[in-house]
Amino acid sequence: MEVVCLDLEGVLVPEIWIAFAEKTGIPELRLTTREVSDYDVLMKGRIDILQEHGLALADIQDVIATIRPLEGAKAFLDELRSLTQVIILSDTFREFASPLMRQLGWPTIFCNSLIVDSDGMITGYSLRQNDGKRKAIEHLRGMGFRTFAAGDSYNDITMIRTADDGAFFRAPKEIADQYRGVDRCDDYASFMKRIKVFVDEGK
Amino acid sequence: MEVVCLDLEGVLVPEIWIAFAEKTGIPELRLTTREVSDYDVLMKGRIDILQEHGLALADIQDVIATIRPLEGAKAFLDELRSLTQVIILSDTFREFASPLMRQLGWPTIFCNSLIVDSDGMITGYSLRQNDGKRKAIEHLRGMGFRTFAAGDSYNDITMIRTADDGAFFRAPKEIADQYRGVDRCDDYASFMKRIKVFVDEGK
Repeated sequence: MEVVCLDLEGVLVPEIWIAFAEKTGIPELRLTTREVSDYDVLMKGRIDILQEHGLALADIQDVIATIRPLEGAKAFLDELRSLTQVIILSDTFREFASPLMRQLGWPTIFCNSLIVDSDGMITGYSLRQNDGKRKAIEHLRGMGFRTFAAGDSYNDITMIRTADDGAFFRAPKEIADQYRGVDRCDDYASFMKRIKVFVDEGK
Repeated sequence: MEVVCLDLEGVLVPEIWIAFAEKTGIPELRLTTREVSDYDVLMKGRIDILQEHGLALADIQDVIATIRPLEGAKAFLDELRSLTQVIILSDTFREFASPLMRQLGWPTIFCNSLIVDSDGMITGYSLRQNDGKRKAIEHLRGMGFRTFAAGDSYNDITMIRTADDGAFFRAPKEIADQYRGVDRCDDYASFMKRIKVFVDEGK
């Protein structure tokens, strides 16, 4: 038995904060961990910006509902779910992911959550656990699963290395070059082919 | 963050072997662990019967594809997946579950697998791990999840007790009477209400 764990943003859907910044026309929300290295500082800044603009969670979800999965992502995921078990491992928040999960047919996602006050305004966030992607793979292995992990960025490296097998999907060149031992795929057809190799090896 | 773990047979779909016995008109396949207490003996007997009738895995899957989820199960599961994360924890085999998972919109399922020869005949089975339901709950808790587990039978007791919260769904009276500390639900509306209590407690 095997399970395939996929990163969300960049693999199945666009980067949510960047797409949200574009949809709302609030350029400050485009900042990522590349510009602000401390994640907590970055998130608190984002929450302040949402407060300033009077954006409650429901408003944000309405905007996110207009963001579409990446072209071909739904068909890829549908086929993959018919072949094997799939879990999305993401550092995003379930409240943001939810409108996109609906469009993807409610795949299972393990991620983090937001803290929302009685007016529906976001006041904070809660990580399910530190280093959640890697630990999820370890626990899935502990359940007797062969594991395959794929993502596009630095925060996917530990889960890819902890899994029995894995690959990059559309990783930026500087990341792929730094981890040459990890296979890279740049389109869904070759990605599916690579995952099928892993699935078939277990038969 | 929380995850709801559901047993499959009796909760979302009929008992697969019994439904299969009815569809094929092979009454010997109706035997369950109530009649044959040793699971391995039971499974080997079933595999022998399938061989005698020349039933390959593909034939069996064709029959299982004509079995329908329980009335209301799909709508229940769709609503639940929009509220929280759901994983089906089952002792069945993925090859049997697959035609039913398709009808339920490919929810994630953790179960066991069959061993199939080059002619497509079933020759054996492989458990992912012993006591897989209970261990899955333990590992999900290790990932930082609050857990809710529900099922209808003796093999669900350890997972219900290991989870943070849980309930019986349509458990036979003798089982429910034996474990009076566990809440019981007998229709999807009350089951959903009970699960929402658990989800809301985490907010």
